[in-house]
Amino acid sequence: MIAKCRSLGVGLRPHMKTLKAIEAARVAVDPAHGGIAVSTLAEADYFARAGIGDIQYAVCITPDKMARAAEIAGIARGFSAFLDSVEVASSLAGAPFAAWIEIESGGRRTGVLPDDPKLLEIAAVLREGGVALAGVATHGGHSYGARSVAEMVAVAEEERAAVVAAAERLRAAGFTVPGVSAGSSPTALHMARSDGLTELRAGVYMAGDLFQSGIHSLAEEEIAVSVLASVIAHRPDLNQIVVDAGGLALSKDRSTAALEGGDLGYGVVLDVEGTPSLGRLIVAGVHQEHGEIRGEAPLPFDRLPIGARVRILPNHVCMTAAIHDHYLVVDGGSEIVARWDKIVGW
Amino acid sequence: MIAKCRSLGVGLRPHMKTLKAIEAARVAVDPAHGGIAVSTLAEADYFARAGIGDIQYAVCITPDKMARAAEIAGIARGFSAFLDSVEVASSLAGAPFAAWIEIESGGRRTGVLPDDPKLLEIAAVLREGGVALAGVATHGGHSYGARSVAEMVAVAEEERAAVVAAAERLRAAGFTVPGVSAGSSPTALHMARSDGLTELRAGVYMAGDLFQSGIHSLAEEEIAVSVLASVIAHRPDLNQIVVDAGGLALSKDRSTAALEGGDLGYGVVLDVEGTPSLGRLIVAGVHQEHGEIRGEAPLPFDRLPIGARVRILPNHVCMTAAIHDHYLVVDGGSEIVARWDKIVGW
Repeated sequence: MIAKCRSLGVGLRPHMKTLKAIEAARVAVDPAHGGIAVSTLAEADYFARAGIGDIQYAVCITPDKMARAAEIAGIARGFSAFLDSVEVASSLAGAPFAAWIEIESGGRRTGVLPDDPKLLEIAAVLREGGVALAGVATHGGHSYGARSVAEMVAVAEEERAAVVAAAERLRAAGFTVPGVSAGSSPTALHMARSDGLTELRAGVYMAGDLFQSGIHSLAEEEIAVSVLASVIAHRPDLNQIVVDAGGLALSKDRSTAALEGGDLGYGVVLDVEGTPSLGRLIVAGVHQEHGEIRGEAPLPFDRLPIGARVRILPNHVCMTAAIHDHYLVVDGGSEIVARWDKIVGW
Repeated sequence: MIAKCRSLGVGLRPHMKTLKAIEAARVAVDPAHGGIAVSTLAEADYFARAGIGDIQYAVCITPDKMARAAEIAGIARGFSAFLDSVEVASSLAGAPFAAWIEIESGGRRTGVLPDDPKLLEIAAVLREGGVALAGVATHGGHSYGARSVAEMVAVAEEERAAVVAAAERLRAAGFTVPGVSAGSSPTALHMARSDGLTELRAGVYMAGDLFQSGIHSLAEEEIAVSVLASVIAHRPDLNQIVVDAGGLALSKDRSTAALEGGDLGYGVVLDVEGTPSLGRLIVAGVHQEHGEIRGEAPLPFDRLPIGARVRILPNHVCMTAAIHDHYLVVDGGSEIVARWDKIVGW
């Protein structure tokens, strides 16, 4: 992703909402740019204390979060936050951090439309309150609905066009707009033109998941995060192997159900070396702490005795990684070479 | 639930997998019985260190978990674990804790059928290895598929009949079977006869959720756990209010989608006092940290300005509570009277 962004002539701002670990940030950050994005103040606090200075809180901030944000900004001098309303811009007066105005580019979540009169009003209120304008930012969340490379390229261009239009409108009105930020992993990977952007945000690309491989962001064998589970029971009468990873350990994300190529349940099961030597097995059902592996009969019961370890590729790694408090890092195979602790919660 | 179990003449073993907090256990435990059930060794360890002595690990244990289980049993002298295989029974030889043989009663997850020859074999292997038999246990997980009280009563009787049959078979073969354990919240609440049972396990009843109210386990206004969230953005153009509780804070459980009475999305939105004064609003869409409230147009934007707090009732409280590390306890209204920390993870 660093190479892709350099080729586009933009900075990379890795979004740490996916992996939430400082060691991952150290690998992901482009030293030429330096910043990261986060999705919670707990992440912001964690990365600030770990020494990252440029932290963009890429979710609209609210007045009740100001005190904690100011405290974080005392540690991470480059802390900044999103907003999309005049009310919040007004409540930020005197804040010791910069603000990004969030722009709507088709994700239908938060943000002001580039031609909304509020855009200039928010910038004016920030200026009046002495709050630095970090720039304008957008997230083309609708890229997750795209199913072909051509659709992804189109969403990337919608993102770019919307946020650049907003920046130009602000500049025409006399505001200085240092940052023009866009991105999601699919659009960053497939972006054809980047003129007017200063940076791209992306997170899920660091790990990948079955949904991303389903929409051609990466190959399934490139997925870097899996859930290590143990076989806890055999049910040959049901052609079912039960593991100790259920809805909590895998998440109940079912995004892959909407993809072509068959339903992947709650994840794809690999052997402990991370290879698909067991055939195509999926976790077809989950309870809180139980996962039910099913597949073509008969399942490889002999190769997966009780106590055997498997790895389960996640549907949506952001959801799956979130509840786990550490990673065991392997460099091919199953030998653990490091443990990366991470932040959990808010 | 204590009263219900007493009326049935059985002990209550509250399942702490739902709330995972010692203060909740102190309220839930019937002093006449004393024990709890848990679903992870992290919970077992947490409750052991908090002083609970009788802890049933109600998931099949595996050989790789023996060392940690033995350590926990050194603290909680009444620690016990489930198993359903000869292999694990054999690996338990010399274990400093008792074993429950899990019985299949229709949940199609783990457990041996009451008439499976393995039942007696497992008991014999345990005796040979000097492992105390705590009893037989089952979980009628298929109660979650029941939609009427009559169906629930039928599942409760399937649970009871299966686990009592297993106990009788073992006793006829000369084994002592102290415990005969069944349960889920729906079956415990609707159980008509309990002869042969010594205890019922249930967890979700302590908090309740939209799925449980949908299947008539409790009324929606009795649901005790909600996610406190802040309004972070208004999108009147989409008739949408965005809050800072998304797929992580609410979970992606969609179990209520299968209920009659309309899809509840990712949860029902109440005012901060916990009352439905806002009208019928639901979180119709989620991203990782964003929840999109939609409902009949126009939404009450004026009553929910940016920064306003709402409470969101969960679809499945076991999934929702799991990632949060504490509860803020209110006794009606919104004044916080206590903070209950809880265990997260494995």
